[in-house]
Amino acid sequence: MTMNNNRLLKIEMLSTGDEVLQGDIADTNAAWLGQKLGDLGLKFQSRHTVADDLDDLVSSMRECAKRSDWVFVNGGLGPTSDDCSAQAAARLLGVELELYQPWLEQLQQWYARKNLVMPQSNAKQAMLPKGAEFVDNPVGTACGFIIEYEGAKLIFTPGVPSEMKKMALEQWFPRLPVSFDTGVKRFYSFGLSESWLNDKIDKLTLPLGARIGYRSARPSIEIKIFYDGRCGVDTRLSFEAQVRELIGSFLFCEDQGNWAQSLQDEMLVRKLKLSLAESCTGGMIADQLVAQAGSSAYFVGGIVAYSNSVKSQILKVSDKDLAQYGAVSLSVVEQMAQGVRQVLGSDIGIATSGVAGPDGGSESKPVGTVCFAISTANASFSQTLKFSSPGRHPIRVMATAVAMDMLRRYLNGLSLSADYQLASRIEQQGSEFL
Amino acid sequence: MTMNNNRLLKIEMLSTGDEVLQGDIADTNAAWLGQKLGDLGLKFQSRHTVADDLDDLVSSMRECAKRSDWVFVNGGLGPTSDDCSAQAAARLLGVELELYQPWLEQLQQWYARKNLVMPQSNAKQAMLPKGAEFVDNPVGTACGFIIEYEGAKLIFTPGVPSEMKKMALEQWFPRLPVSFDTGVKRFYSFGLSESWLNDKIDKLTLPLGARIGYRSARPSIEIKIFYDGRCGVDTRLSFEAQVRELIGSFLFCEDQGNWAQSLQDEMLVRKLKLSLAESCTGGMIADQLVAQAGSSAYFVGGIVAYSNSVKSQILKVSDKDLAQYGAVSLSVVEQMAQGVRQVLGSDIGIATSGVAGPDGGSESKPVGTVCFAISTANASFSQTLKFSSPGRHPIRVMATAVAMDMLRRYLNGLSLSADYQLASRIEQQGSEFL
Repeated sequence: MTMNNNRLLKIEMLSTGDEVLQGDIADTNAAWLGQKLGDLGLKFQSRHTVADDLDDLVSSMRECAKRSDWVFVNGGLGPTSDDCSAQAAARLLGVELELYQPWLEQLQQWYARKNLVMPQSNAKQAMLPKGAEFVDNPVGTACGFIIEYEGAKLIFTPGVPSEMKKMALEQWFPRLPVSFDTGVKRFYSFGLSESWLNDKIDKLTLPLGARIGYRSARPSIEIKIFYDGRCGVDTRLSFEAQVRELIGSFLFCEDQGNWAQSLQDEMLVRKLKLSLAESCTGGMIADQLVAQAGSSAYFVGGIVAYSNSVKSQILKVSDKDLAQYGAVSLSVVEQMAQGVRQVLGSDIGIATSGVAGPDGGSESKPVGTVCFAISTANASFSQTLKFSSPGRHPIRVMATAVAMDMLRRYLNGLSLSADYQLASRIEQQGSEFL
Repeated sequence: MTMNNNRLLKIEMLSTGDEVLQGDIADTNAAWLGQKLGDLGLKFQSRHTVADDLDDLVSSMRECAKRSDWVFVNGGLGPTSDDCSAQAAARLLGVELELYQPWLEQLQQWYARKNLVMPQSNAKQAMLPKGAEFVDNPVGTACGFIIEYEGAKLIFTPGVPSEMKKMALEQWFPRLPVSFDTGVKRFYSFGLSESWLNDKIDKLTLPLGARIGYRSARPSIEIKIFYDGRCGVDTRLSFEAQVRELIGSFLFCEDQGNWAQSLQDEMLVRKLKLSLAESCTGGMIADQLVAQAGSSAYFVGGIVAYSNSVKSQILKVSDKDLAQYGAVSLSVVEQMAQGVRQVLGSDIGIATSGVAGPDGGSESKPVGTVCFAISTANASFSQTLKFSSPGRHPIRVMATAVAMDMLRRYLNGLSLSADYQLASRIEQQGSEFL
């Protein structure tokens, strides 16, 4: 099969359930599956959400099947009576539900291993439309199945995200006519705009069998290169080198997009310890680092220096400088970074202080103005940036990202004076290479 | 109109756009609108997502219109050529697009006020299907419109969330046959399970014209009471008093669900200052408090005491106790709370220390074990809870919520020894009423 064939495959998704339909939960399954299909060079034709209502389900399945090659039906396979996807499938085909004995035994064994008696309601989950093909669920009690209707295949999966994902990846994707020597290369950039990247990468000569995708997930842009079998290894590596060069120092990680994990890996290799002094980011940087298991091996701790008294008493910032330059100043943020490094005893100290708004801005320091500093035993660098993103939360998110980016740049010997496209540089101080 | 009529109203949503369909962004507009309709006692019959493809759009609109009284079409009204919802509407009706002069003038004035020349492409946004009813967009360049097809009304709105929301609330909802003396009362609880609440509230006698809704948004459960005109004020207040009594001390806020804001309001009224010493929560509590504008008025700062050296050197925790009892112990967490209160100079100090996992658990302190302490000038209370939620992130989220709940309980003179249904109490120390 070639990619051209893949593009023609018509796929629809049918989600069931009141919680999704009435907005109690966002349909993250749909977003996840859309992205994964994109990685294979495929895409949804359309998506539909209906309540767990037998008539609605049957007519939606019929309509989807008429238009598509594959319909991915998600949800409605639970043990309770409101879950009726299997029943709807049987009615669509005009057949009965019948017991699939191997799954009933699997369920009974699962409960027996936990020293529990299987509730009678779970037996319902072993009832499949007559003639359906069984689809295993290795991580839950709701098995899936596949039926054919008017030339279309419909695959039924449970709504629990972890179960749906495992079943889609392991049991549905291998059935799709995709050439599976397909590879994906991912780059994660910070500081460049999507349109800038798009323009530049468009000017490269795309090798046969490669295509580009972008995903903007604030604060980063993910650049994906998808390959099919026509694109050989040498060609891939040489093209990736061109993309890497183009992103330049704004490349945060490759292959995986977890910044905190990638910083943690680098800190551990270098056996360095970090501490933080956060004012406007108020714990957000620490929270992201601590979210990674094992972060205690390099992250000593942080001071949320929200008031001036904490800045002066704990971080030893000069009261005179606080009064003269204000809390949002290069002088103060430098002293914060140095202070936290010394007080908490780490190799590197990073500090933030800014005006996140909505109030507190002035003519000289409008909302969006944030000062950053990084301090080591030998040197320090500080900078003031002005973010254009509106709103307290986006400003704090961007400030957190810049602080993490400064650590990455320091660890990789890159210039700390980066030309971010999403902020304007107001001033800087110290050596840009520490 | 009575609520019975409302329930019969058939509403569908049609979202357009590749970003939503392919999962680059989750359809939060749909979730938001579903919730808002629920508040009015209405709900979606189904929801559909299609690409910005003229043929697909026209056939989807036709199908939706056949089944519904109202179709809420969202997206595809931008200035670029891929946005084609207005064109699809015109084709559905078999009419031409025609210039809506007042909107063109509005756009030109908008650009003129900003000293900009209107790009030619924006003129497209003033082209409406002949005969369509104009719908104003007070906050953007894409106006909306309403058409009728086969007895159904279709309303077209832009995909930008802030624009869609304003237009739905102000211009669509008033056109729906809902009795608008309808009121909503909201309670936000923490620490009780949804099924427990459901069982208890089900046993109350629901007044005529009232109905109950629940929304689980970890870590809290929102209980909503919807009223129509048949339910008078006295009846409402008396029923609300019963629900309030039932939730008891687990009621976190009423009417609005922003916990940090509600704590901030209470702290400001009482003129009290807070500081935090966070170990396993690692900045998450501080981050949530600082997310509120104006938090600097009561939040002095925090210490992310991730390593033992920070606990002993900055927070003055006894090295002997750290060695003897371990970092996750009542003794240490108490000293952390007292230490941060004294070192940062606040009225109240709150501390957390726990095993968030996935590693680091032991037989006596398994993953999910978290110690909490609150300290004032006169007294302190500490407790160890064991959370059953699996995973590092859920444990940290629950621990953050318990810490905030302890502050709320202290401020309201409630027992600090709460019988949370989502955790088991291992031990406690000190007076439960400070």
